[in-house]
Amino acid sequence: MNILFIGDVVGKPGREALRQNLSNLQDQHKADLTIVNGENAAHGKGLTKKLYHQFLEWGADVVTLGNHAWDKKEIFDFIDDAEYLVRPANYPEGTPGEGLRFVKKKQKTVAIINLMGRVFMNPLDDPFQVIDSLIDQAKSKTNLIFVDFHAEATSEKQAMGWYLDGKVSTIVGTHTHIQTSDERILTNGTGYITDVGMTGAYDSILGMEKESIIRKFKTGLPAKFEVPETEKTVLSGISVSIDDQTGKTNNIKRILINADHINFN
Amino acid sequence: MNILFIGDVVGKPGREALRQNLSNLQDQHKADLTIVNGENAAHGKGLTKKLYHQFLEWGADVVTLGNHAWDKKEIFDFIDDAEYLVRPANYPEGTPGEGLRFVKKKQKTVAIINLMGRVFMNPLDDPFQVIDSLIDQAKSKTNLIFVDFHAEATSEKQAMGWYLDGKVSTIVGTHTHIQTSDERILTNGTGYITDVGMTGAYDSILGMEKESIIRKFKTGLPAKFEVPETEKTVLSGISVSIDDQTGKTNNIKRILINADHINFN
Amino acid sequence: MNILFIGDVVGKPGREALRQNLSNLQDQHKADLTIVNGENAAHGKGLTKKLYHQFLEWGADVVTLGNHAWDKKEIFDFIDDAEYLVRPANYPEGTPGEGLRFVKKKQKTVAIINLMGRVFMNPLDDPFQVIDSLIDQAKSKTNLIFVDFHAEATSEKQAMGWYLDGKVSTIVGTHTHIQTSDERILTNGTGYITDVGMTGAYDSILGMEKESIIRKFKTGLPAKFEVPETEKTVLSGISVSIDDQTGKTNNIKRILINADHINFN
Amino acid sequence: MNILFIGDVVGKPGREALRQNLSNLQDQHKADLTIVNGENAAHGKGLTKKLYHQFLEWGADVVTLGNHAWDKKEIFDFIDDAEYLVRPANYPEGTPGEGLRFVKKKQKTVAIINLMGRVFMNPLDDPFQVIDSLIDQAKSKTNLIFVDFHAEATSEKQAMGWYLDGKVSTIVGTHTHIQTSDERILTNGTGYITDVGMTGAYDSILGMEKESIIRKFKTGLPAKFEVPETEKTVLSGISVSIDDQTGKTNNIKRILINADHINFN
Ligand SMILES: [Fe+2]
Ligand SMILES: [Fe+2]
Ligand SMILES: [Fe+2]
Ligand SMILES: [Fe+2]
Ligand SMILES: [Fe+2]
Ligand SMILES: [Fe+2]
Ligand SMILES: [Fe+2]
Ligand SMILES: [Fe+2]
Repeated sequence: MNILFIGDVVGKPGREALRQNLSNLQDQHKADLTIVNGENAAHGKGLTKKLYHQFLEWGADVVTLGNHAWDKKEIFDFIDDAEYLVRPANYPEGTPGEGLRFVKKKQKTVAIINLMGRVFMNPLDDPFQVIDSLIDQAKSKTNLIFVDFHAEATSEKQAMGWYLDGKVSTIVGTHTHIQTSDERILTNGTGYITDVGMTGAYDSILGMEKESIIRKFKTGLPAKFEVPETEKTVLSGISVSIDDQTGKTNNIKRILINADHINFN
Repeated sequence: MNILFIGDVVGKPGREALRQNLSNLQDQHKADLTIVNGENAAHGKGLTKKLYHQFLEWGADVVTLGNHAWDKKEIFDFIDDAEYLVRPANYPEGTPGEGLRFVKKKQKTVAIINLMGRVFMNPLDDPFQVIDSLIDQAKSKTNLIFVDFHAEATSEKQAMGWYLDGKVSTIVGTHTHIQTSDERILTNGTGYITDVGMTGAYDSILGMEKESIIRKFKTGLPAKFEVPETEKTVLSGISVSIDDQTGKTNNIKRILINADHINFN
Repeated sequence: MNILFIGDVVGKPGREALRQNLSNLQDQHKADLTIVNGENAAHGKGLTKKLYHQFLEWGADVVTLGNHAWDKKEIFDFIDDAEYLVRPANYPEGTPGEGLRFVKKKQKTVAIINLMGRVFMNPLDDPFQVIDSLIDQAKSKTNLIFVDFHAEATSEKQAMGWYLDGKVSTIVGTHTHIQTSDERILTNGTGYITDVGMTGAYDSILGMEKESIIRKFKTGLPAKFEVPETEKTVLSGISVSIDDQTGKTNNIKRILINADHINFN
Repeated sequence: MNILFIGDVVGKPGREALRQNLSNLQDQHKADLTIVNGENAAHGKGLTKKLYHQFLEWGADVVTLGNHAWDKKEIFDFIDDAEYLVRPANYPEGTPGEGLRFVKKKQKTVAIINLMGRVFMNPLDDPFQVIDSLIDQAKSKTNLIFVDFHAEATSEKQAMGWYLDGKVSTIVGTHTHIQTSDERILTNGTGYITDVGMTGAYDSILGMEKESIIRKFKTGLPAKFEVPETEKTVLSGISVSIDDQTGKTNNIKRILINADHINFN
């Protein structure tokens, strides 16, 4: 099972980069399943129903989220019926949507989990507790388990990686919007990268217009952050090849497409 | 001017990786100047006088620090006399040591600045204010300026990068201990990477023994973190080539040496 | 010099409590000078020009602010001309408004300083550094110095209190919106209280409607906080009597007016 | 049922203040049950077996804890057998000790719960979720329920207070070490105060020696905090009278004994 994962798509530049590259990337990486993190799809904050469906049309099989999941209020209207949408699983019981979704590809079932960290983030249920029971649920149906761990601190992400080593197929980090270069297969066969990075404006700060963010750091005053209008983009992703029998990752490869790193071969 | 920078050396495995690789890396990258971040050199926390001198013997020209600068108390005894040691510049006036040091290489003066971020970190003087006056000081002697920005948040690091674009030769991030893959030359000629990554035990969490960190995340109880004994290491670095006349970065190259990424050619 | 200080006035219930009680309190405490913290005056967030002038009409001589100073954008239009308005002094140089204002009462000049803490708050210039130079400025004109220290952590507030003991007449804390019972005169004559508390809706959470805040804690989902409509209010204040010659506080008295504590005698 | 609660006892000065005053306070407030928060009893950090038993000898019926519960390692040796010791209930399952304890007084069973907040604190299980199930457990045996909510943020404490209004007899806050003046009986009969305050050295910062804490704020450098040696102390407490039938609080009274507030009558 080959899985292609695209990191946080930020606003229009991110959507354009996705639209332009996704089909080629799927071909190139022989992707059987494509997952896109969409928490920043709508103007940098949140996801609309229209954009969710657009991502599916463009070839995404599953869309994951993060702390920005709820920024566009209409999410509450469609998340329960969006069977290919996964929100962080460690929100409290009763939260709309699902944190674990199953999809079928190549006659195989894949479990996709979205989970959030707590260090330097808002309080949530313990991801280390929650993931244990999600894996139990997933294992009853499949040993192909893919985790998008949306977290800030590198310590928490590496800790979760090692904690899940041998228990899930692959765990990729999202949220910092900067790709790390530490992709690897851990000792017991789990594919890992600390952060996939984001997809959006390249000359930006985390996908947002840089002048207002610098001004905020310089002045301490409130500021409004906008997605810049630009065609100069970065696309960040990861491609993994998972053994259908064992559920282990055989291969993990970073994808980074921008003016400086055109690893599109 | 070719500068080789090695990211946070963590404990004995980090020191061993440095000792084994530094001379070869200097040859390979034709390094004129070598800088090593040593904030975690002594058992993962702080720097001793002995280790500082060892780094110089092994070929480092300058050692930079970070939030762990003060963890070994003896630092207060030697930092003022250590002319190749740079601590974060934005500690308040009166702090021992210097945040800006000049070294001469190839008849050229290079300014090395160490600076700390504030997001998700302890309060310090504003790095955006402090860097302005440090650059003024440095510019009076040279236009070759290298900044080690020790910070947690990717937003603050990218903001500082763009803020310094065209004002310094190179700015590299440290502190998260995970190398990012976003090395580039910004629009106005400043070399940039969000984090160089650390040098230390490879099967670890940020260079520290992983079991006790996972236990701490699982239990919330106090824990003691140790540097693991291992010969399986990672070395993380960056190599830049700076134009002696303009002070701009012509070339920036990531270095990552571990069992999975042996980019040593 | 008798100074009456009223803690953070939150929205309409706070303004009503202020309007109804201020004149009586001034009589009762023989106030020569009245200071009101207005950072939450407008719908719980920020201050408008209209409300600033209303506070002056009702009897305030000076209005102080805090982290919410900038929430109503019109503040930028009038803060520079508002000579009885004081914003936190430790915003960076170039910030609109002033952090130290002088007023004349009873032929005496009083210096009023507004300052913000950094623990559990956004980064700002070091309040311990900034206050030193503000006191120098103030001392050139008067030894009657009143500080509103807007901060979250009790440790930072007590530390600032002891640090200023003997250097200023009185330092009162604001921001937590809950009055503390630790008013006292420190060893060297400085009046001190950790937090004056807020003025606003009594059956509330920090002056805001309680249901939506509880829901936010329960769900982790975004929520909009509103000021409740109610006539059941709390007014929190402090009254100090300062020796005109020495600048020391002779007397400090808490004021708390609500359905349970009617200390209005 | 009259309950006397004494806030965080900090080191030797705190223990002395407790020893000297407890018996008198019990008489004066006709206490049927006495609870002491002991998280800072041993040198300001943690609790030893010896001190736990000393508190019981001096008249405490129950000892509660907080984030410092685990600072003295010997706690792990005796907490499971200490039937009058309650640690924060929202540590994960499997944590030594109990977060809910029952004691019998005047032929009545009282449930004592210790709970921790999460805002500005380390991640823990959601106190709003955990308290629901604890109340269910407690209600099966008694409607006399007393909660020590150990938390930093006033918002979280007031939110918990209103959330528990009508569900528990009394909820008192601890942890900030500064007594608030907002004790009251909420709309549905629950006694409430945001923070009881601490018991320890009066001329101190949160019970600790003030010079080193000020130095740390001024320098940003590591510092060791010590409990001062002094006989000048503050004792902070709360006394509630609960209706045995309804479990509602009829009366709540702050206790504050120091050089400035000798409300011992
Ligand atoms: Fe994102
Ligand atoms: Fe995010
Ligand atoms: Fe480090
Ligand atoms: Fe660091
Ligand atoms: Fe306020
Ligand atoms: Fe505030
Ligand atoms: Fe405490
Ligand atoms: Fe505590």
